[in-house]
Amino acid sequence: MQLDFIYLSREDLVECGLLDFDAALSDVEAVLRMMARGEVVMPPKIAIEIPQPDGRQKGHLVAMPAYLKGLGVAGVKWAAGFYTNPSVGLPHGLDLVILSDPETGRPLAVMEGALITAVRTGAVAAVGAKYLAPDGASAATLVGAGVVGRAAAHALVRALPGVELFVYDVRREKAERVAREVGASAAGDLRAAVERSDIVVTATSAQSPVVKDEWLKGNVACVEIGKNEFEDATVLRADLVVVDYWEQVVSREWTSLSRLWRQGLLKRVERIADIVARGRVPGGGLRFFSPIGMACEDIIVAQRLYRRAVERGLGTRLPLWRATDWI
Amino acid sequence: MQLDFIYLSREDLVECGLLDFDAALSDVEAVLRMMARGEVVMPPKIAIEIPQPDGRQKGHLVAMPAYLKGLGVAGVKWAAGFYTNPSVGLPHGLDLVILSDPETGRPLAVMEGALITAVRTGAVAAVGAKYLAPDGASAATLVGAGVVGRAAAHALVRALPGVELFVYDVRREKAERVAREVGASAAGDLRAAVERSDIVVTATSAQSPVVKDEWLKGNVACVEIGKNEFEDATVLRADLVVVDYWEQVVSREWTSLSRLWRQGLLKRVERIADIVARGRVPGGGLRFFSPIGMACEDIIVAQRLYRRAVERGLGTRLPLWRATDWI
Repeated sequence: MQLDFIYLSREDLVECGLLDFDAALSDVEAVLRMMARGEVVMPPKIAIEIPQPDGRQKGHLVAMPAYLKGLGVAGVKWAAGFYTNPSVGLPHGLDLVILSDPETGRPLAVMEGALITAVRTGAVAAVGAKYLAPDGASAATLVGAGVVGRAAAHALVRALPGVELFVYDVRREKAERVAREVGASAAGDLRAAVERSDIVVTATSAQSPVVKDEWLKGNVACVEIGKNEFEDATVLRADLVVVDYWEQVVSREWTSLSRLWRQGLLKRVERIADIVARGRVPGGGLRFFSPIGMACEDIIVAQRLYRRAVERGLGTRLPLWRATDWI
Repeated sequence: MQLDFIYLSREDLVECGLLDFDAALSDVEAVLRMMARGEVVMPPKIAIEIPQPDGRQKGHLVAMPAYLKGLGVAGVKWAAGFYTNPSVGLPHGLDLVILSDPETGRPLAVMEGALITAVRTGAVAAVGAKYLAPDGASAATLVGAGVVGRAAAHALVRALPGVELFVYDVRREKAERVAREVGASAAGDLRAAVERSDIVVTATSAQSPVVKDEWLKGNVACVEIGKNEFEDATVLRADLVVVDYWEQVVSREWTSLSRLWRQGLLKRVERIADIVARGRVPGGGLRFFSPIGMACEDIIVAQRLYRRAVERGLGTRLPLWRATDWI
């Protein structure tokens, strides 16, 4: 008996609504609520670190499985992040997602995963900004207009209606392009933009802080998509530190949060899932959110796109086998 | 810029030599030697257990990543094992393998993985039998003629030339078919077959022991592909207990080895990789080998098939994307 699954390329996914950021935002909120209710089975992701000949990190390959009990879907993202890729004309991230039926384990679909990753990451940042924004927030700065920053820009303008968005990038033309695309303003002076913002989202590949603590307003929500983009001082004086998956954060040696935690300097850390389940955090102060990215976010988006593809007959049908007597 | 990978169905893989058991045996020996030399990066696999409504286990989905440094290839197997599948006309195992370039993280191929799993599992069992067989071994019994048992039969007759093979299955016609296919004899009486065998390999889905300790010869190699197919007494009196990946074995609550180890009853345990690197274990006594299965075995076989597919232009070429400005 022939057994099939479908393959969805990036073009197929876009046709199925991958760039519908309203849908991505509701997917992410929905799956965080499921997580808060204990309906997500998601072991920590496992990474293979790949060094360069000189010992510095070249990249990593990460297996990220998740099972969404309530939705009846499971899957895995196999995610590559290679710092040296841009120098050979490839993107930093190259991912595939496999979606599986949790009743039988049967693969339902394989999908291009890097744009799913960018979109859900942007949506997670925007959900964090929405739930952690101080009362009366009216301006936001996005630092970084690469592929993830661009997705974050789309998600932020939808999640924060009425909030003015400034987009900054060390390459001004990238900031301008993204700002134009989402109806935001490009910022030429990062400091000035941050100083007037109630929300600051960073999505850079920087290896050291890009936002100085002294630039931040007293009441501000910081969302760090990259790593170590804010100064330790900011994390240490935050009134509220929020993560997505604490066991993952502390297992990563290179995050500032895990370093500060190992030094005994971090106190209370909350989960974004619990915050979304409870509702927006009122008041002000400094709120700091550092999402590391979770498989459940990829799988819920992938499941929506898969359903749409099946409804519309999109994608490439592939046989596991046509006929086999090895069964 | 369009970026492609290839998909290889079971038929494509067979055309590329998946059923070449000599090649599978040398792949498995080669990767075990790499492992002994520390050239394999392989974090423990991560499993999502999926229960039935009554709480009994329905199945599991397992992410198994590995990076073979010497060969310059990495990948992951996403493996499903569902006990309830045969009742709905599906095989117990449904797997996909993704092969990746460790220089860039780029996916090179997606492949049907269940037949790769069966073939490499059979090859691992036969490699174990070859290295652990007592001096002068002349007869072997294989218990279980399902898809993995069938692969083990093919691998055993190649790894153990001159050794007479008996194949037993509770369904006699399955044993006869497999025996005929590999030039072995079907055994009607399991006890009689085991009593005259120097090697006993079990590949069943039994949940309790199928081989009684009292049937075993004094000098014998036991290879347990399934779980708990031998009695505790056999494990406890073994002169040599061999596993593939000890951290995995002890993390699995349901293996007899992990239970006996937690009870403090297991002494010395050796790795099959170290044994293969050193050479066949001479002499006699009772040797017990329980492989849990390792991603590196899947990846080395997948890499050989991928290379052949590229040489011969086989498989379905699929785009990650055709053209994208989200990059």
